[in-house]
Amino acid sequence: MKYEITFKPDGTTILVDKGTNLLEAALAAGVHVNATCGGQGVCGKCQVIVEAGKVDSEKSEKTTQEKYEEGWRQACNTFVLSDCTVQIPVESRGLKHLVARQLDMGTEERKIADLGTRPLAEGWQQDPLAIKLPVKLTPPTLKDNAGDLTRLSMGLKKQYQVEDFSAELRCLETMPGILRKSEWSVTATLMAGPEPGAVPPAQDQSPRFKLVRLEPGDTSSQHLAVALDIGTTTVCVELVDLRSGEVIAEAAEYNRQAQRGEDVITRIVHAQKPGGGEELQSLVMSSINQVIDEVMEKSGSSKKSISCMVAAGNTTMTHLLLGMETRYIREAPYVPVTNFMPLVWASDVGIDVPDCVQLCSYPAVASYVGGDIVSGILGSGVFQKEELTLYMDIGTNGEIVLGNREWLACAACSMGPAFEGGGIKHGMRADVGAIEGFHINPITLEPMVITVGRKMPLGICGSGLISVLAELLSGCVIDRNGKFEHNVSSDRIRSGQFGHEYVIAWAEDSGTGDDIVINEVDIENLIRAKGALFAGCQTLLESLNLSFDDLDRVIIAGAFGRYINLEKGKQIGLFPDIPAEKFYFLGNGSLLGSRLVCLSKGMFSDVERIAKMMTNVELSDNQSFMDKYVGALFLPHTDSRFFPRVSEALEANYQMIQSERKAQ
Amino acid sequence: MKYEITFKPDGTTILVDKGTNLLEAALAAGVHVNATCGGQGVCGKCQVIVEAGKVDSEKSEKTTQEKYEEGWRQACNTFVLSDCTVQIPVESRGLKHLVARQLDMGTEERKIADLGTRPLAEGWQQDPLAIKLPVKLTPPTLKDNAGDLTRLSMGLKKQYQVEDFSAELRCLETMPGILRKSEWSVTATLMAGPEPGAVPPAQDQSPRFKLVRLEPGDTSSQHLAVALDIGTTTVCVELVDLRSGEVIAEAAEYNRQAQRGEDVITRIVHAQKPGGGEELQSLVMSSINQVIDEVMEKSGSSKKSISCMVAAGNTTMTHLLLGMETRYIREAPYVPVTNFMPLVWASDVGIDVPDCVQLCSYPAVASYVGGDIVSGILGSGVFQKEELTLYMDIGTNGEIVLGNREWLACAACSMGPAFEGGGIKHGMRADVGAIEGFHINPITLEPMVITVGRKMPLGICGSGLISVLAELLSGCVIDRNGKFEHNVSSDRIRSGQFGHEYVIAWAEDSGTGDDIVINEVDIENLIRAKGALFAGCQTLLESLNLSFDDLDRVIIAGAFGRYINLEKGKQIGLFPDIPAEKFYFLGNGSLLGSRLVCLSKGMFSDVERIAKMMTNVELSDNQSFMDKYVGALFLPHTDSRFFPRVSEALEANYQMIQSERKAQ
Repeated sequence: MKYEITFKPDGTTILVDKGTNLLEAALAAGVHVNATCGGQGVCGKCQVIVEAGKVDSEKSEKTTQEKYEEGWRQACNTFVLSDCTVQIPVESRGLKHLVARQLDMGTEERKIADLGTRPLAEGWQQDPLAIKLPVKLTPPTLKDNAGDLTRLSMGLKKQYQVEDFSAELRCLETMPGILRKSEWSVTATLMAGPEPGAVPPAQDQSPRFKLVRLEPGDTSSQHLAVALDIGTTTVCVELVDLRSGEVIAEAAEYNRQAQRGEDVITRIVHAQKPGGGEELQSLVMSSINQVIDEVMEKSGSSKKSISCMVAAGNTTMTHLLLGMETRYIREAPYVPVTNFMPLVWASDVGIDVPDCVQLCSYPAVASYVGGDIVSGILGSGVFQKEELTLYMDIGTNGEIVLGNREWLACAACSMGPAFEGGGIKHGMRADVGAIEGFHINPITLEPMVITVGRKMPLGICGSGLISVLAELLSGCVIDRNGKFEHNVSSDRIRSGQFGHEYVIAWAEDSGTGDDIVINEVDIENLIRAKGALFAGCQTLLESLNLSFDDLDRVIIAGAFGRYINLEKGKQIGLFPDIPAEKFYFLGNGSLLGSRLVCLSKGMFSDVERIAKMMTNVELSDNQSFMDKYVGALFLPHTDSRFFPRVSEALEANYQMIQSERKAQ
Repeated sequence: MKYEITFKPDGTTILVDKGTNLLEAALAAGVHVNATCGGQGVCGKCQVIVEAGKVDSEKSEKTTQEKYEEGWRQACNTFVLSDCTVQIPVESRGLKHLVARQLDMGTEERKIADLGTRPLAEGWQQDPLAIKLPVKLTPPTLKDNAGDLTRLSMGLKKQYQVEDFSAELRCLETMPGILRKSEWSVTATLMAGPEPGAVPPAQDQSPRFKLVRLEPGDTSSQHLAVALDIGTTTVCVELVDLRSGEVIAEAAEYNRQAQRGEDVITRIVHAQKPGGGEELQSLVMSSINQVIDEVMEKSGSSKKSISCMVAAGNTTMTHLLLGMETRYIREAPYVPVTNFMPLVWASDVGIDVPDCVQLCSYPAVASYVGGDIVSGILGSGVFQKEELTLYMDIGTNGEIVLGNREWLACAACSMGPAFEGGGIKHGMRADVGAIEGFHINPITLEPMVITVGRKMPLGICGSGLISVLAELLSGCVIDRNGKFEHNVSSDRIRSGQFGHEYVIAWAEDSGTGDDIVINEVDIENLIRAKGALFAGCQTLLESLNLSFDDLDRVIIAGAFGRYINLEKGKQIGLFPDIPAEKFYFLGNGSLLGSRLVCLSKGMFSDVERIAKMMTNVELSDNQSFMDKYVGALFLPHTDSRFFPRVSEALEANYQMIQSERKAQ
């Protein structure tokens, strides 16, 4: 059930879920309401007047009884219970809702929030990587005393037409006891794969099975898979019920390797120290074990129910996960140990699951185009479509894939960790207290700040940084070089250690007790990051004689906050300036692909096909890329022809704001 | 170079190698010479006269100068340097050389000694299970920065047309360093197999490879395999040069598991105790490690040169080797965990070799027809021949295989350890000091004793027991029930704790300082053992509507001493009474098969074919077998029609000896 909220005076409407608070609704609708405490209800600035409709809201200390009776409410503490009409009072209002209209926001916000438009691989059948087969065997007699394994094999053949499988020593060790204790009624877990352990995979291999577990009785109702995304920053897990295909629990935690360095390069350097690789492996294992414990607890399941695991991660993460040397990933010419990863026993590498669980890792295309990208391409179905798609995964590295069902090309460009909050004075990850939504009143320069978890702000996360940069630009607070305009003044703009800075939250409104700012060095870092990504896309397109206009679809993957805003991304030149309807937000594509492989062994064959068909275009030492990168160090770009619509809107905006400022 | 020795007075001749001593030559020729100290030169009884030819011999204390000049020599200390004529003086002589003639010995002795007649698998090509490929790779560049494994794969494909291989994590871990330290010039060791680790093996699998080791530089000249026979009693090893195909060193040691029981049943019982299985595994590993150390030292090789290992053993030994449960092998209906054994890393199960060496174990047909038999069938080529062959492996279990290239049937019968010296008062293994050759003078009852290593006798080994039993029978010292004849008397026959006994060596001639005897209980045990084997063969033949006369070949496998004597085996009913030319002695067939698999991966496919094609006939609770067994508890058999030639000769012998005894 969705309710329609109409914001006055300009009549912007948005559909929201029951219980959404009005500050979030306004942010999503692109309507500016002053708010500095991130939504925690303490600054008292986000006053609105509920003119019609039912809301749930307690009177705040900052609202007089009289005003409360007139309908005044604190937006962040007011929850929607019906369609509503909400007046933004002059003192809360920005010029911004007008500007926002012009830049065609709001629509995009809705699209992002609506996962129904998420691009997904199609046509796959639920035929999990591991299968569980309950079987009753005929007990042996003197006339029929073949070995236990042969007996099991014959039973499975008779009952399920499973023709051929292999068994490893660890399964054989306990087999006799299990068969007899269960009176020959057991459940076999078979792991499918084109070729277990084959690296690189065999091409003409008919699917075979490997016996990984034998349990007494019928345990086929407990049949789970663990899908993992091993990110440099975050480890995400989904617990998948292989019978229903449903995700029954999910969890995410920081990758504890971050203690030894924020980005892959620092980690690789650490891994070269004595014992460093082992330490990093054990750190990521502790994160993995924690998220697995969490999903087990959430779902009330036992680890005994885990039948298989699939992990996707970038090349460095996958190497560290398996304990392989990462040194030559970092040193030119950037060579991984292997592109195709061996299948291993999860417990052998340190994952705390029963020793019969196999871990299947996504293959990498190159040192900086890893299994996470292959996984995203699989999950999003790019490899299945006729449409020409540009796939972008934005993180410390920008990884980009271009192609369709006929061909795939990819490249990686080092963006630095800016959009993950790294190298930004008050940058942080999209955790509770991170500013994820931001508007500015271009006249008063008062902000509208909304944080993850609606707590007092602690810093700014990726989607917050996109918003801040775009708002400062479109609000004419910074110029296209990323420098603060000379002709605006506010106590929020001041000179700091790293050039000028804008105070997003004063100490009294912040959760840290210090002012939260963005400075010119932060902005430079963000410009470099978005410049690298854009130049990478350009180079990749050009190498194939294509341009942005040839694209049928752009898929944005990555774990940005819910409020990542397409138009704002375009404004700063992060995303190409092409029609909004061509954009799709995928979310965590890597995790999605991991889940699909758990659910479909056919998909696993596609994984290998994708990894083999993807051509890597190396951008290091690529002069064309360097030229394009320099051209992109501008907001949105040196050459406005690449951003015609954005440039035009920014110009119109600029005129409007300048005239408004003069009028004040 | 062979020399011909002619023994007078009866003119028996034999061809021997230079340096053979005259006692051995006489034994091999079936010529009786009194000798009681086993060949050590102390009893002084084996006096002969060298009439012509050159010998190397020192004068013994027991020979006067006069006699020495006349040509008198101690046979055991006289070594042949040319063709010789040797007179056996009356006091050394037995009636026996006459009897021996009649029983057609001698010929067989030569056949046994001559390994040229050993039946061997044919038509296999030297194409080892592991291959070593030196390869120079093109170093990576920015334009060609595929992963290390992909680079190696392409190099091997280009240089050797190796299409497809898998790599396990342990090989990948060290790959980057090795490639770079060696400046991209490396040697890859690839393990072939129809399907590494597949249990049961895939049928339609094209041969694939698994990368097991990468070494810097060209190490292809060090390319060895370890072939193992894991016997209940003895662990034998051959170190095979996979380039030349030659065995470069061999060694054998007792299986230290024997500390925990002589036979497989006792071992299985021990394995059921807490920690018992682990203890037995670790005991056999210490034996294996010792024999490997020995062959390494003998050959001056490094363990780094080992490319693969193949082991054959009976089903229990193989289960204990790999750490699998043996309990149900012993309990009816006698079911092994698996017939096909998983490929494992040798170091994972406790073998002290580099961790990149894979251990391939022979598959078993049934609980009591193990990989050692499959290995022998492979090595002897039974599975390739049109001829109907009976293959017998004589040990604690008699394992018998009947068939040809079209079909194979097998059975196992519990013989007990008698022919391995177990349950025999002075039984021992075929080690130094074991009586392996024995003749008796049927008139004086004086023995001719020859021991392994020509040391004073310590006990009697398997071939010695066959000789002793046959000599006592054909010398009319015992009757066909195995009881001592009443009408012979000698101080060598006396009453002991276990019925009557014959003193083979007096305390002064023995290495133990005690009399060495054979008693009636020993003889009973031997009769039971040979009866079980014969009844097993009969049952197997009958189950296929065949008789002994249908056999084209009989192959005797097992590690009997060099002097095992076919005719003596027939006399006691151990071997069927069919023409001598149908018999072949294989020696250690299990070790032979292991070696062939190391040398030929094609043979490895045959192994699986053999194991699958062999039909096991269960003799436990088989009434027909029990009836036949009872009939066989007689020397040579209750029904003399089964031993027509032997019975006739024994009868003639009996008449001759009785008349000679009367004449004395």
